[in-house]
Amino acid sequence: MKTWTALGVGLLGLVATGAQAQTIYPISRAEILAGSKFDFKVEFPGAPAQGAVKVTINGQDPAIALGQSAKFVEKEDGGDLSAYWIRGAQISKPGAYIVEASLGDKKATVKWEVFGTPQRKAKNVILFVGDGLSVPHRTAARILSKGIVEGKYNGELAMDEMPHMALVSTSGTDSVVTDSANAMSAYTTGHKSCVNALGVYCAKNKSTLDHPKVETIGELAKRRNGGMSVGVVSNSEIEDATPAGMVSHTRRRADFNDIVKMFYDVKPDVILGGGSPNFLAKSTPGSKRTDEDDYIKKFEADGYKFVSTKQEMQAAAKAGSSKVLGLFNTGNIDGALDLKILKKGTVSKFPDQPDLVEQTKAALDVLSKNPNGFMLMVESARIDKYAHSLDAERTIYDTIMLDNAVKAAKDFVANRDDTLIIVVGDHAHPVSIIGTYDDDTPGNQLRDKLGTYAEAKYPNYPAPNADGYPEKVDVSRRLAFVFGSYPDYCDLGRPYMNGENVPAVKAADGKTYVANEEYCKDPMAARRTGNLPLDANSGVHSADDLVLTAMGPGSEMFKARVDNTYVFRVMATALGLGQ
Amino acid sequence: MKTWTALGVGLLGLVATGAQAQTIYPISRAEILAGSKFDFKVEFPGAPAQGAVKVTINGQDPAIALGQSAKFVEKEDGGDLSAYWIRGAQISKPGAYIVEASLGDKKATVKWEVFGTPQRKAKNVILFVGDGLSVPHRTAARILSKGIVEGKYNGELAMDEMPHMALVSTSGTDSVVTDSANAMSAYTTGHKSCVNALGVYCAKNKSTLDHPKVETIGELAKRRNGGMSVGVVSNSEIEDATPAGMVSHTRRRADFNDIVKMFYDVKPDVILGGGSPNFLAKSTPGSKRTDEDDYIKKFEADGYKFVSTKQEMQAAAKAGSSKVLGLFNTGNIDGALDLKILKKGTVSKFPDQPDLVEQTKAALDVLSKNPNGFMLMVESARIDKYAHSLDAERTIYDTIMLDNAVKAAKDFVANRDDTLIIVVGDHAHPVSIIGTYDDDTPGNQLRDKLGTYAEAKYPNYPAPNADGYPEKVDVSRRLAFVFGSYPDYCDLGRPYMNGENVPAVKAADGKTYVANEEYCKDPMAARRTGNLPLDANSGVHSADDLVLTAMGPGSEMFKARVDNTYVFRVMATALGLGQ
Repeated sequence: MKTWTALGVGLLGLVATGAQAQTIYPISRAEILAGSKFDFKVEFPGAPAQGAVKVTINGQDPAIALGQSAKFVEKEDGGDLSAYWIRGAQISKPGAYIVEASLGDKKATVKWEVFGTPQRKAKNVILFVGDGLSVPHRTAARILSKGIVEGKYNGELAMDEMPHMALVSTSGTDSVVTDSANAMSAYTTGHKSCVNALGVYCAKNKSTLDHPKVETIGELAKRRNGGMSVGVVSNSEIEDATPAGMVSHTRRRADFNDIVKMFYDVKPDVILGGGSPNFLAKSTPGSKRTDEDDYIKKFEADGYKFVSTKQEMQAAAKAGSSKVLGLFNTGNIDGALDLKILKKGTVSKFPDQPDLVEQTKAALDVLSKNPNGFMLMVESARIDKYAHSLDAERTIYDTIMLDNAVKAAKDFVANRDDTLIIVVGDHAHPVSIIGTYDDDTPGNQLRDKLGTYAEAKYPNYPAPNADGYPEKVDVSRRLAFVFGSYPDYCDLGRPYMNGENVPAVKAADGKTYVANEEYCKDPMAARRTGNLPLDANSGVHSADDLVLTAMGPGSEMFKARVDNTYVFRVMATALGLGQ
Repeated sequence: MKTWTALGVGLLGLVATGAQAQTIYPISRAEILAGSKFDFKVEFPGAPAQGAVKVTINGQDPAIALGQSAKFVEKEDGGDLSAYWIRGAQISKPGAYIVEASLGDKKATVKWEVFGTPQRKAKNVILFVGDGLSVPHRTAARILSKGIVEGKYNGELAMDEMPHMALVSTSGTDSVVTDSANAMSAYTTGHKSCVNALGVYCAKNKSTLDHPKVETIGELAKRRNGGMSVGVVSNSEIEDATPAGMVSHTRRRADFNDIVKMFYDVKPDVILGGGSPNFLAKSTPGSKRTDEDDYIKKFEADGYKFVSTKQEMQAAAKAGSSKVLGLFNTGNIDGALDLKILKKGTVSKFPDQPDLVEQTKAALDVLSKNPNGFMLMVESARIDKYAHSLDAERTIYDTIMLDNAVKAAKDFVANRDDTLIIVVGDHAHPVSIIGTYDDDTPGNQLRDKLGTYAEAKYPNYPAPNADGYPEKVDVSRRLAFVFGSYPDYCDLGRPYMNGENVPAVKAADGKTYVANEEYCKDPMAARRTGNLPLDANSGVHSADDLVLTAMGPGSEMFKARVDNTYVFRVMATALGLGQ
């Protein structure tokens, strides 16, 4: 995107002068939706008194642009910095804003772009986040769920068949490789942040809940356009980073109990996922809360229908419930391979969990009743979790499940042109398809079984069932879907039929991780020495660009390479949230 | 693409019935450019007599559709099959063609789509092939050549800033993972083929030169539109698979001497690359030919200006030469890191080699004189070669060089709208950026130095020079650009300052490969046991989809997921080659 070039502003001079200079939030090059709420903060090192500092926006007192007076906190948190705050600031007028903060001869300068939005184009937005969804996931899911003959597929993924595409960059303010918290936060707020942060900039506040906030699209959708409906759907624990990104403001994604409270404060109309223990009062068996608040009861008191099985969920949707809280597992909902084919994981404990497709359909039923439209986020969470655990087949099956959910959304919009649909990962994983493992190839090591190039004969998964899943996964010739980062582990090179792979286990020192010897016993297992630090027990994310596909009103804004923050901009523009 | 669905034809019934059934070339679902030349072949197992077989196209004698009578070869090559041939066939009328071949009660059926092209939209096409160019290459090249601050880049790659994008699938007729031969052949002919094949289907012929041919876009451009100019530019040996794909027909990409002859037969107006020994008569010192043909002399006799240095190349372009043959190295031209920064490789032996940008500019100077337009292919070949050798920095620098060449093409079209530009890989590599290696992190193993997530602090390469290259590559904090496939090797986790990485060397058995112990001596080297078969000495390709970007007339045809053969279709359509 050429925003800054278009504004005629070079990048030099936008950074603070001096290594110990004051820090301004929002940061340099922030793009701020006109009328959205954000906390303006300047941190002055050395804890100066108020009289020693000067802050201006476009040369004037910030109160003029931001509509509120500042609060100055000397020695914030008892520490060595003083803070200049305007919490809950808003700027209604689009344009360039130059922020200067001076302390003696040290001056920090940043520039913001405040962007408005033209007339609303979309009634609804559906954002599909394939957590960790990388290009090879699409390829592998297409091979398994569509079939391929002589190099040509027998069908297309629903997520592939969209008219617009872009490369999305994911790096955060602090590092090259993002996690799911700041990655999702970029989509839901339009601001880059640091690893572990949701809906906040990473300042120096001691409390994880005190950092400078930026408004989420969940909050905006509720506050604007006469009150849209909001849906948050995931197969992870619902207080996990990606769904939490729709409503949360915390420097620490692991603030699960606070995040549940934030869900309650924002009140998305549909909340469907796993992770019930953080909703239960401390005294309730199985609770993970540290207080006696029972959030299931609280949501019910506010008119939510609480459901904990697929049948209940579908009944609630059919009965016309306008608010539904569904928690279907104490942990994450089981992934597609376990749920549909192998019945491993927690399927016997939770025999009536919905899959992501059923969740999506129920959410659309409930949300689409609002004449003001809806903002729905659907996460296929375990694409990522299974990539972490180096479980190739499970991460591929959950990509197929994501695609089925996308198909459900495309069916929903089949006779309407008022809904923007976006499908994207939040970060990549270092995964690739390097050939096929063939049990019939001679050799007594896993690497002997690997066919590359002309020896990479097509896999022999059976034709997929009606839902696109091959019902047999442990076939004799299968994709070699490999992982570029790993702890010490033993690689079976075939599906983990008894449950998700656990590549590494804690070592005797209680700190580092070693290969899970359970798998090493297999005579065909390949023992690999990790390329990750010894405290890693699983694969890590990569900084590789993502591929985004989109359709519907507003999707034409996607092309070329964009920052992940631009996804927020497209959604906010389509919904006219800046008006 | 929905071609087959649109034609209302299911896939069932398009395949041969019976395991030993006859095989038809072009194969099922082939898309054939109207008026292009191709060899029609049916192979009948069991070597039947002519009277025992029946072949029809749309129920009639094939001679009607193909304009020629068939030739029947009983016991072809003295073997156990008989062949029905119509070489040099052409079909001028677009539409669906059903081909049936019967032998007794066995009938094979395939369906072709013959496609025409509407009025010519583009005068010129420039196809950039980043050999092995994968998404992480773009990310890494952007980080090094543009810089990134707080998660936002300071500029865009020329190849990213294009209005149209598609995912490209690369699998061939025989296997999931393609090589550069059949990958390029798909682009230049519109037909999928098998590993190692160029411009032919992989039939059962004994001679590598006898397999059923399909016309290349190099040949078509010369034969149609009043005779366009053709350019083939690479920094590999020019007879290597990718440049060869513009002109060649052979089952075996290593038929280098035949490929040089094919270049001579097609006569691209501009031929720039490495690999001179296959042009020299056998008796010339350094020749790799097996005959006494001197192709440099032959080209010169046909009006080509032969050049072997950058200075000569630029002089020839400036002097208005209309045909240029440039061979700048006996092997591949050195990559950007060696050519520009380190002066390793063969730079001292060939001190005046052009880089890909200079080659591209010279080619455009020469080709753009033809009022009938031109078809130029530019390959950045060593992105792939360095990915094979697990040489991260070199593969990244050559991606930057590709981008500079794309920039040169964009400059060429700045004031014209008659040129389609496409940038794409030919296959992917299993590469990813998983963080940064930091020498200042404590620890005595390479894995200790790896920062992931919040510890993946931005690398400290110096700001790039005017050409986008950081002039220092061995910095203390650098990208961890990792490889997902590898032989036994020792990973330094830092640049190979003395020349391209040689990860593995031949073992004492003369067949398998072992780690190159030269690097293992380094106390920080990580010894990795390969995940590839023991006969692999380097990393392999992956089957992951590619990202293609495009601009100019015809580029709007790119969206969603397409087969690599579709790239040919877009180019042929833009140039109106089917008229």
